Amino acid sequence: MKIHVGPVRAPELEEAVLDAGGELSTLREASALVWYGAGPERFGDFHHSGIEWVQIPSAGIEPWLAAGALGGDETLFTSAAGAYAETVAEHALALMLAGTRQLHTIARAGSWQRPEGIRTLLGATVGIIGAGGIGRSLIRLLEPFGVRVLAVNRSGRQVAGAQRTIRADDSEGIGELLGACDHVVIAAPATTSTDKLIAATELERMQPHAWLVNIARGSLVDTEALVAALAEGRIAGAALDVTDPEPLPDGHPLFGEPRALISPHSANPQHLLLPALARRVHTNVARYLAGEPLEGVVDLSAGY
Amino acid sequence: MKIHVGPVRAPELEEAVLDAGGELSTLREASALVWYGAGPERFGDFHHSGIEWVQIPSAGIEPWLAAGALGGDETLFTSAAGAYAETVAEHALALMLAGTRQLHTIARAGSWQRPEGIRTLLGATVGIIGAGGIGRSLIRLLEPFGVRVLAVNRSGRQVAGAQRTIRADDSEGIGELLGACDHVVIAAPATTSTDKLIAATELERMQPHAWLVNIARGSLVDTEALVAALAEGRIAGAALDVTDPEPLPDGHPLFGEPRALISPHSANPQHLLLPALARRVHTNVARYLAGEPLEGVVDLSAGY
Repeated sequence: MKIHVGPVRAPELEEAVLDAGGELSTLREASALVWYGAGPERFGDFHHSGIEWVQIPSAGIEPWLAAGALGGDETLFTSAAGAYAETVAEHALALMLAGTRQLHTIARAGSWQRPEGIRTLLGATVGIIGAGGIGRSLIRLLEPFGVRVLAVNRSGRQVAGAQRTIRADDSEGIGELLGACDHVVIAAPATTSTDKLIAATELERMQPHAWLVNIARGSLVDTEALVAALAEGRIAGAALDVTDPEPLPDGHPLFGEPRALISPHSANPQHLLLPALARRVHTNVARYLAGEPLEGVVDLSAGY
Repeated sequence: MKIHVGPVRAPELEEAVLDAGGELSTLREASALVWYGAGPERFGDFHHSGIEWVQIPSAGIEPWLAAGALGGDETLFTSAAGAYAETVAEHALALMLAGTRQLHTIARAGSWQRPEGIRTLLGATVGIIGAGGIGRSLIRLLEPFGVRVLAVNRSGRQVAGAQRTIRADDSEGIGELLGACDHVVIAAPATTSTDKLIAATELERMQPHAWLVNIARGSLVDTEALVAALAEGRIAGAALDVTDPEPLPDGHPLFGEPRALISPHSANPQHLLLPALARRVHTNVARYLAGEPLEGVVDLSAGY
């Protein structure tokens, strides 16, 4: 199978293609395209009728949907969903522990002051809203803490390692979860049905000592409602790797909020991304050649 | 057995004594003393010839040694060494992940800036100098990260979960360890032989991207040498829960150092301490009544 990597060259990805048994080619000759180094708005200039399969480098596909790049023909699209799960889950745990141990407060203190509100994650209750690949990785990292995990997913099918799994459309169940958790971690894809999933009502259900952690997409949280909840101390804090708007503009209230810790979409930085993407390309090229189902196949009806 | 809890009353500890089958009594009638709520300088006023056993509430005994409170007679002393291992290990992991993910930098940034030097703990090499109770707990928490653990202890006896265990007096082995690690965690007791264990020479052996984490005692690190190493960027950072001097005075260079994260001896805060101390008191009272060896027996020749 002839595969083109581009529009920007990435030796790590080309190596993965070759290692998996694929053949590198020009764009014109290629029947598969590993997209790298540009946004979807340029995709139309590269796509052609010979391309059967496109590997997208990101886990989320919203920009591709917004650009109208998907679904015009029979081309199979795969995203990198799940490929960055481990490193993103590590970032989620880092944010959870930082909140638990008030590291954001002590980092800013500049003097020897014991902060209020130090807690422990050992034996805590953790809610994972959108327990897919990242959620499963996070459950694995949390295992030695003896936490109780309450999971939410679309199907309601039991998530391994979770005490209880709640269907995404069970709003009563989710309300109970929010009230029971010490940490609420958002790891669901951004879709029309997850837009502002956490808004004023949901924040009100959370406990005053609870933390909200978002490592999914900014659109899942109603920023204005969160700013209000933090300012009034209705929850203990929010650790966000993604925001709405993103990037968060200078002077935004969240930057001045002592209960907030904002990491600039750095859960999966470029230099950690490429090796993980190369592993995904390797897997998918090998599967494609073997006629097996690919990982991360885009489901346009689900929107991810 | 008649046991006195004091000089300050602690209902949680009294309950632990009773639960374990002990009897609470006045100080005068007591044959055991669970010390709580005051420093060792007041101990002489409370100790009497009827006291066979004293439970010290702290894991470290330096202030007791300094106050000359230990070893004057046949009294058995037990410290809380190991009792706080889990919560301190959690704090150590929180500091390691904060450094790895540059959370100290983003907490201070106040704007959307992707920091340099973000790494992952997944697959990293972690050195644990003084792999006792806290070290064992930390190894357990690190297990899902697939890290390589290099341990140092006094005996050189293999630590479970460590790739390699080095004797504390094997300076060549420790030098190699320092050069191999992404994170060096200090968890050894403060003794004359661990004083300034990490000084200029040791810091020079560390890699430029490596982090030093101290959750033991400030005296184990040469502060001046560390300040110089951080200022020159010879290591990536230092996360310290303990310092020398402690408390670190306002205006100390470490508070202004962008590569440093100083938590004010908050790995084991009072409200997390009491439940753990109560568990230790319960165990030791039960063992004392059963004539079994106690946990945390102070070894004056070793100094901890």
